[in-house]
Amino acid sequence: MFQSFDMISNPDEAIERVSRLRLLMAKRGVDAYLVPRADEHQGEYVPASAERLKWLTGFSGSAGLAAIATRDAAVFVDGRYTVQVAAECPGKIFEFPGLARAKLKDWLVANVRRGGVVGFDPWLHTAGEVLRLKAALEEHGLRVKAVPGNLVDKIWGADRPAPPSGAVVAQPVSLAGKSALDKIAELQTQLKAARQDAVVLTLPDSICWLLNIRGSDVPHNPVALAFAIVTVHGSKAELYIDPKKLSKEMRHSLEPAAKIHAPEKLEERLVALKHADKRVRVDGESAAYWITNLLVRSYVKGTDPCIALKAIKSPAEIRGARAAHVRDGLAVSRFLAWLETAAQSGPLDEIMAVKKLEEMRRDTGELKEISFDTISGSGANGAIVHYRVSEKTNRRIKQGELFLIDSGAQYADGTTDITRTVAIGKPSSEMRERFTAVLKGHIAIATAKFPTGTRGIDLDPFARRALWDLGLDYDHGTGHGVGSYLSVHEGPQSISRGGMAVLEPGMIISNEPGYYKEGAYGIRLENLVLVTAAEIPNGGDRKTMSFETLTLVPFDRTLIVAEKLSLQELSWLNDYHARVYDVHAATADAVTRAWLGKATAPIKA
Amino acid sequence: MFQSFDMISNPDEAIERVSRLRLLMAKRGVDAYLVPRADEHQGEYVPASAERLKWLTGFSGSAGLAAIATRDAAVFVDGRYTVQVAAECPGKIFEFPGLARAKLKDWLVANVRRGGVVGFDPWLHTAGEVLRLKAALEEHGLRVKAVPGNLVDKIWGADRPAPPSGAVVAQPVSLAGKSALDKIAELQTQLKAARQDAVVLTLPDSICWLLNIRGSDVPHNPVALAFAIVTVHGSKAELYIDPKKLSKEMRHSLEPAAKIHAPEKLEERLVALKHADKRVRVDGESAAYWITNLLVRSYVKGTDPCIALKAIKSPAEIRGARAAHVRDGLAVSRFLAWLETAAQSGPLDEIMAVKKLEEMRRDTGELKEISFDTISGSGANGAIVHYRVSEKTNRRIKQGELFLIDSGAQYADGTTDITRTVAIGKPSSEMRERFTAVLKGHIAIATAKFPTGTRGIDLDPFARRALWDLGLDYDHGTGHGVGSYLSVHEGPQSISRGGMAVLEPGMIISNEPGYYKEGAYGIRLENLVLVTAAEIPNGGDRKTMSFETLTLVPFDRTLIVAEKLSLQELSWLNDYHARVYDVHAATADAVTRAWLGKATAPIKA
Repeated sequence: MFQSFDMISNPDEAIERVSRLRLLMAKRGVDAYLVPRADEHQGEYVPASAERLKWLTGFSGSAGLAAIATRDAAVFVDGRYTVQVAAECPGKIFEFPGLARAKLKDWLVANVRRGGVVGFDPWLHTAGEVLRLKAALEEHGLRVKAVPGNLVDKIWGADRPAPPSGAVVAQPVSLAGKSALDKIAELQTQLKAARQDAVVLTLPDSICWLLNIRGSDVPHNPVALAFAIVTVHGSKAELYIDPKKLSKEMRHSLEPAAKIHAPEKLEERLVALKHADKRVRVDGESAAYWITNLLVRSYVKGTDPCIALKAIKSPAEIRGARAAHVRDGLAVSRFLAWLETAAQSGPLDEIMAVKKLEEMRRDTGELKEISFDTISGSGANGAIVHYRVSEKTNRRIKQGELFLIDSGAQYADGTTDITRTVAIGKPSSEMRERFTAVLKGHIAIATAKFPTGTRGIDLDPFARRALWDLGLDYDHGTGHGVGSYLSVHEGPQSISRGGMAVLEPGMIISNEPGYYKEGAYGIRLENLVLVTAAEIPNGGDRKTMSFETLTLVPFDRTLIVAEKLSLQELSWLNDYHARVYDVHAATADAVTRAWLGKATAPIKA
Repeated sequence: MFQSFDMISNPDEAIERVSRLRLLMAKRGVDAYLVPRADEHQGEYVPASAERLKWLTGFSGSAGLAAIATRDAAVFVDGRYTVQVAAECPGKIFEFPGLARAKLKDWLVANVRRGGVVGFDPWLHTAGEVLRLKAALEEHGLRVKAVPGNLVDKIWGADRPAPPSGAVVAQPVSLAGKSALDKIAELQTQLKAARQDAVVLTLPDSICWLLNIRGSDVPHNPVALAFAIVTVHGSKAELYIDPKKLSKEMRHSLEPAAKIHAPEKLEERLVALKHADKRVRVDGESAAYWITNLLVRSYVKGTDPCIALKAIKSPAEIRGARAAHVRDGLAVSRFLAWLETAAQSGPLDEIMAVKKLEEMRRDTGELKEISFDTISGSGANGAIVHYRVSEKTNRRIKQGELFLIDSGAQYADGTTDITRTVAIGKPSSEMRERFTAVLKGHIAIATAKFPTGTRGIDLDPFARRALWDLGLDYDHGTGHGVGSYLSVHEGPQSISRGGMAVLEPGMIISNEPGYYKEGAYGIRLENLVLVTAAEIPNGGDRKTMSFETLTLVPFDRTLIVAEKLSLQELSWLNDYHARVYDVHAATADAVTRAWLGKATAPIKA
């Protein structure tokens, strides 16, 4: 749900922890030590046992890295966390130079003596990250050295939470659409073509996709933390996983597709592959340096083959996504119907909205979990793109303001992600003009047709053109890939300024242009869309694709300036609203049905 | 003007030349020798003395490379030259594997013994090219070796044309807008900031821009082949140029900005810089390997600093471009007026059109040269994107067909480039529908507004959307940068699938979407546009840019389906046509004025 800032109770505590770390560093001959917000699997969410950065510095954001030198210390975060890092970490001992990618090297060169050692935990940094850091620092005479055993864990000691051991459950083939054995065979075909003997998988969502399992080790992502190896021969994958996560039944049901090992056995296995001179593919941009460093000459650079395969949903996953969106769309519609009344009848705040929306989703009886912490921003809070409400920032939802709510759900048949922006009371004409420009961008994506070979970068400008015409823009991507009852953010596809992955039928992606007026309001309109093959009536000569919109919830009609829409745009909007009504009318309660009727009534040109 | 295929008169001649080359290769211990279509300056056009590829193989295209091994030989060309290379080169001795970038490595590995030597002329390949080839071949046990003295020149002997010595003339500051001394100072500021001691310039258009000179060494590009060095201190550039190119007056007028040396002195100077341990910037993607190889540790990788500076036109160059386009637009309008009558009154062919258009331009009294070989394609020839008419391919311009003509001029105040597609007689409804889709793409670029930081890649899709809606597309970029009385193709800017350069006010770029129906017809609509700061009326919050269309010639009204245009598109088109008429009406002859009146009459919705 929502996340509150969790400050170290007093700066002295941080000072004491950092001092103890420095003593340990001295013993190990380390002049600076790196503490990233990462676990062995490089996911967006980490278990409590891996929240070392937060424990040491107080910083609770989802991305960051601390560097502790003998005298000075710094926490590196990106632009969205600039304010938060200064609020959470004691400025007495930490400085905040900016983004690690831009500033870490210079900071280390300035704060570590020539010939000094920069130590790191080889499990918490990717191979690519370490090699780039080595190259950058070695020319300045610093040594970059893997330090076995995490130093923060040693001082954290018994207070450190145990690593998670969430139960693993099967994802039925009826929902996955393809058996684990078939997926393993696809990987083996790729290995064969590339003359590789094996691939090491370290991304939990790749492994869960491959073996048709789900877990509960981290918040919001239904994944099990584990490692896997697929070899070019043999029919089973090797799964390295804490046995506590597997019931007897689960173990039995995994039997045909996986040989199960304790995680401790991974090292021995990799060493054996190396000694046998095998060519082992590892994704150096997501796998830990520990793995590639152990494999040495057996390490073959490559991408995790599950990423591209998983992005193209099976027919069963597509059916599941459609069903999940019907269910979720009704829950969100119920919430919006409730909001309209509640906002008029009494004091309402951002946290109440978050709770009510989750309640509506839980009422479906199918909710596994929400798919990320809900963004619930009224007025000026809506303009903070990565805003998460806390008791401290919680704001009344007031008349004459806009309210932005970005949320999603995990259901067994699909993952959802939707943003709506609604007017509370009467909106200003500027709000309506800009909402309409965002909507025009949203429709431009929803109605786009594009030939084979089109990348997300080629569609992104369509979402911005109406805003550009007004001298406006937004500083985030237009769309990210979405998993099937997996991560709400998945690659390789995106619709963005950097989206170089080619779009393929079967990919699910978000369509979420926005506009943010600092200190005033935020607008974002997000549906998920599915890439499909398009029918071109009068014989074009290119194979063409288009999007099917999956999300089924009305856009706020009071914020739409009809005259600013072209006839085609208006017709898309009215068709979409008619579809939303038709899908939900029979199953909605009376209040919601009445609200839907009003909210989806055709808009006249 | 136009270029005809210039075949080697008989295959025996090629066999004899290749045999003599092989004898020489054997003497030099070379197992394969590379013959690129390039000179020391890597320009699009090369002087006759550098047409080694054509002399040896018969291939006359603008890009290609031959590899001669001891038994086999191959000519590598890109997709647009697949047909031409097979027609021009004797298949008896050459094979045509495809693009060098994709196929050269494999061909050499297959045709050169392990341990063998691949020789090349270090003046004719860039540093980047050689390093990539070395890396690719050395892992297969081949050695890549620079061979001093071009081997083809040795067998070509006395028949080889002399290197050009075209006269250099001054480009007045009234047209350039900035003195050579000011430009040199800008380069020095950059060198200082980068802590570099000097930069070597090898691109003729960079040097001509820097020193405000123009030359006549190659066709269509008014450049002088030369080298230059700018050092961080001192006020003059060093110009390495054949003294025959400079009159006494020119030498005198260059005096304040340049120290003039014979080209033979370049080596000595580079060696001196190396011995003095200077840091010398060289653009490894355009400068010859010979230069970076000579500098060794003094070579600092960088870009030619003139490229980015030259792309942003000075106010004087912008004034010049506008004037050049008024002049050129009237000449092209005169041609189109003539074409309309001529096409009805008698047999007309592609070559006649090319000649007439050049005559109209020469009639302005200001034409220096055409800016590239005119593309004049009627019917099916219009669908060949890089078509150049020859006596062999020359085609009647027939009723019921489309005629595409892409041409440009060099004037002292600016370079032009324009494509129009006109219907001869009555077009089909498919032609009209597709022409209108291309026009919609053209207008989408012409009317785009976009914030600071926008790259050409972000605008390219706007030009394609209307075609994508019909399942159509085109396989070339939408726009290329254009010089000021310099090359008609210049970087860094482009509007294309790979256009990563940020657009800046002052850049000139083409806007030329198209559509090609193989075997039937081609459509391309090209204007040049200038990037300008845009006025946003109602207070947007982003600094915004837009385009000013420079080219002033009507689009064929008979090919426009008015109902397919939005009101905004129609209003842009009618405004543009009104502007075209207003600009030319007073100066046009009576026939052209009458034609312009008809051609620019408003189109009703």
